[in-house]
Amino acid sequence: MTRIAATSAPLHPLLSERWSPRGFDPAHQLTGPQLTALLEAARWSPSANNSQPWRFVATRRGEPAFDRLAGTLRDTNARWAGSASALLLVLAETVDRAGAPRWYGLYDTGQAVAHLVTQAQAEGLSAHQMGGFDKAAAAAEFGIDPRFTPVVVVAVGRWHTADLPADLAEREAAPRVRRPLEELVLPADPPVCLQRTA
Amino acid sequence: MTRIAATSAPLHPLLSERWSPRGFDPAHQLTGPQLTALLEAARWSPSANNSQPWRFVATRRGEPAFDRLAGTLRDTNARWAGSASALLLVLAETVDRAGAPRWYGLYDTGQAVAHLVTQAQAEGLSAHQMGGFDKAAAAAEFGIDPRFTPVVVVAVGRWHTADLPADLAEREAAPRVRRPLEELVLPADPPVCLQRTA
Repeated sequence: MTRIAATSAPLHPLLSERWSPRGFDPAHQLTGPQLTALLEAARWSPSANNSQPWRFVATRRGEPAFDRLAGTLRDTNARWAGSASALLLVLAETVDRAGAPRWYGLYDTGQAVAHLVTQAQAEGLSAHQMGGFDKAAAAAEFGIDPRFTPVVVVAVGRWHTADLPADLAEREAAPRVRRPLEELVLPADPPVCLQRTA
Repeated sequence: MTRIAATSAPLHPLLSERWSPRGFDPAHQLTGPQLTALLEAARWSPSANNSQPWRFVATRRGEPAFDRLAGTLRDTNARWAGSASALLLVLAETVDRAGAPRWYGLYDTGQAVAHLVTQAQAEGLSAHQMGGFDKAAAAAEFGIDPRFTPVVVVAVGRWHTADLPADLAEREAAPRVRRPLEELVLPADPPVCLQRTA
C-alpha cells in the first residue's frame, strides 16, 4: 500500500511519502545512532537569530522514561503509541532568559520537528506527532523549566499495521486529504498563476 | 565551498546541505512548476487535526507584487533579498473562524515552511527565511484577514555570491554553528545515552 501525496507537481519522496501512521512494529528497536541522527536533524534547523528554541526529552521503548511519557498521552493516542520505538517530548522555548516572550519559539520548533521527521523518513521510519497529551503532567514528570512549553509528543518507529485494531486499521487506510492549493495561496495583484505540470 | 552541517550522525543531504544564504543569482528565474512544487510541499505537511493553518502570498522577481513585498523588508534584508527569484509571504492562521486562538497555528506553519524549504533544496535551490520585515505593512499591502498573522518572508533562489558586498560575503563564509546536542536533549531518568557514530 502506498500513501503518497496527490500533488500537482512532483515532490521529493521524503516529502511525498511522509504521513503519520498509527501502526508501529512493536518488535522494532531504534538504534542509538538513529536517535542521534533524528536529534541532529532538528539541531541543524534554521531559527530566528539562530536562537534554537527547541528542546527534547528522548525515550525509547523499554526504558522507564518511555512509559512515563506514554502515561501522559490521551487515551486515543495511548492505545497505539506504545508500539512506537521511541517517544520524544518536544518543548519550545517560549520565554527567554530575560522573561520576554520568544515569539518565534513555536514556529521554529515546528521547523526543527519537520527536519527530525524528514530524517526519520530517510532512515526508513515513520513518525506521528501528537498534540493529545497532558502537557502539565509531562512538564511535571520531567521537571521542565516553565520557560519551555510542551508542544507535541512524536512517536517514531517502523510502520506495521498487522496488529492494529479494526477501527484504527480503517483510519490508516483512509485517503489522505488536504485543502486545494488555491486555498493556501492568497491572491497577489496581479494574481499569481500556478502552473500545473500534470 | 561546502556549507555542510557538522553532525555527529550522518544526515540526509537535503538537511545537512541546507543553509540560509544571502547571495542569490539575480539572473535566475523560478519556473511556474517549481513554485507549485514548493507550495505543494507545504500543502502536504502535517498539522493538528489536519487544520492546515498555513497561507502564502507567492511572488516572483519581475512581478509588481515581488517589489511590493520586498518593500516591507527591513533594510538589512532588503539589500540582498531583491536578487532572490521568489519572495513568499508566510501567514499562520492564529485565530479560527469562531474567534478562538489556534494554538498550533505557528508551530504547524513552521513545519510547512520547513517542507517548502526542503523541496527548494531538492530543486537545487536555496531559501532564506526573514523575520525582519514590517508585518503590519505586509498585511495591509496584501489585504490579509486579521485571523492570519504574517510570520516570515522566504527568499528562494539560486545561491550565487559573486555580487555580494564584502561585509555580506564575509558573513556568508562564516562557520555554521549550533548549540551542542547535549543542550537540546533534556535528561530523562535514567538519562538517555546519545551514541555517536563518529
